[in-house]
Amino acid sequence: MPVDPHAAITITAYDWVPDFAKGLVRDLRVRWALEEVGQDYAVRLLPQGDQKREPHRALQPFGQVPTYQEGELTLFESGAIVLHIGERFGTLLPAGPAARARTVEWAFAALNTVEPTVTDLALTAIFEADQSWSKPRLPVVKERIRERLAELSDRLGERQWLDGDFSAADLLMVTVLRGLRGTGLVEAHANLAAYQARGEARPAFQRALSDHMAGFTGKPPKGWEREEGR
Amino acid sequence: MPVDPHAAITITAYDWVPDFAKGLVRDLRVRWALEEVGQDYAVRLLPQGDQKREPHRALQPFGQVPTYQEGELTLFESGAIVLHIGERFGTLLPAGPAARARTVEWAFAALNTVEPTVTDLALTAIFEADQSWSKPRLPVVKERIRERLAELSDRLGERQWLDGDFSAADLLMVTVLRGLRGTGLVEAHANLAAYQARGEARPAFQRALSDHMAGFTGKPPKGWEREEGR
Repeated sequence: MPVDPHAAITITAYDWVPDFAKGLVRDLRVRWALEEVGQDYAVRLLPQGDQKREPHRALQPFGQVPTYQEGELTLFESGAIVLHIGERFGTLLPAGPAARARTVEWAFAALNTVEPTVTDLALTAIFEADQSWSKPRLPVVKERIRERLAELSDRLGERQWLDGDFSAADLLMVTVLRGLRGTGLVEAHANLAAYQARGEARPAFQRALSDHMAGFTGKPPKGWEREEGR
Repeated sequence: MPVDPHAAITITAYDWVPDFAKGLVRDLRVRWALEEVGQDYAVRLLPQGDQKREPHRALQPFGQVPTYQEGELTLFESGAIVLHIGERFGTLLPAGPAARARTVEWAFAALNTVEPTVTDLALTAIFEADQSWSKPRLPVVKERIRERLAELSDRLGERQWLDGDFSAADLLMVTVLRGLRGTGLVEAHANLAAYQARGEARPAFQRALSDHMAGFTGKPPKGWEREEGR
């Protein structure tokens, strides 16, 4: 297990999240990438609320996790961190500028074309659950996801991975698809479901998920159910 | 003017969009980047609808613009294309791996943290204008944007650009902020409004915008107003 409090790399994660978010918080992406490249890392667990305050704000201007610190370098944005880990330690990025550019392309496709539709579902179904439009809006939101997944499924076809070998882009895309668990939307495309399962079967993912789940050692903040409007 | 039908680089753009989208379609980002690095490019203008069909689908699996072709290399995703142009032709990416990683970080912050909130406003206000929830949901959507902009404003402070010199990340962030035109949300933060204006005042941006606007030479597809639900 590469979680080591004395490691040269430190990431941040939450010490508690609601059940619906367990297995989905974005530190999972960074843990997975570090496992793939075989780098030990330390984890600083934040109680809920601390991400919005100093000193964490100095590391992450939007008050989120994860962050990545290695010596003088501090990074936020899971997509950028995963690409950086690929650049720094190899194996998550292909050789050659053209293949590398296509990996970056698919990283943005995961996070800027597919993920926003998935986030919209979480916002509408969970964060806006008490709003009058929550249920009526869901079919419209799901239809947008269906369109994106159908396009992704068409392009993936019978390929194992998005472009050549497993890469940082596949790591990101698989974590985006995980955000649809329980909806049946991914399962509507056998090749996408198999693609996601292939990613999740990787030993590096399994170790990352196990450590991600083991990090939830804290307690919910007082009144979180009311604050979340649930 | 670097638009040249015989150039080694070809991008795609639409030959017509509704007025609300003019000046915002993502080919603008790629045009701007190419102007910054002084590269000529050819433009293939697509009539609305063609982006969803072959042969364009082969270039862009999600049926969108822009795409970027240079010799054997074809790319989609404006964020990836802008970073690629920086890698390939210099001046949009800083020297040194740490500074480069921070530029990628801010590129993802623009497209994965700020832009999805902006897109949500367009979806709710324009694409869902005929839905019962369109108006009631707007305050919730705008509040999320306000939170992100306040955070961005705090981090920007009195800096000219997000991290050091003008970079690919500033180019992307400025185009994201442009998506809020007419809402007053950016103008609520004097430093953000000045930042956006600083980006838009660059000669490369002005040339890119002029050519972007000049490309709308086509006619709306039949029945587009009905199809858009407006």
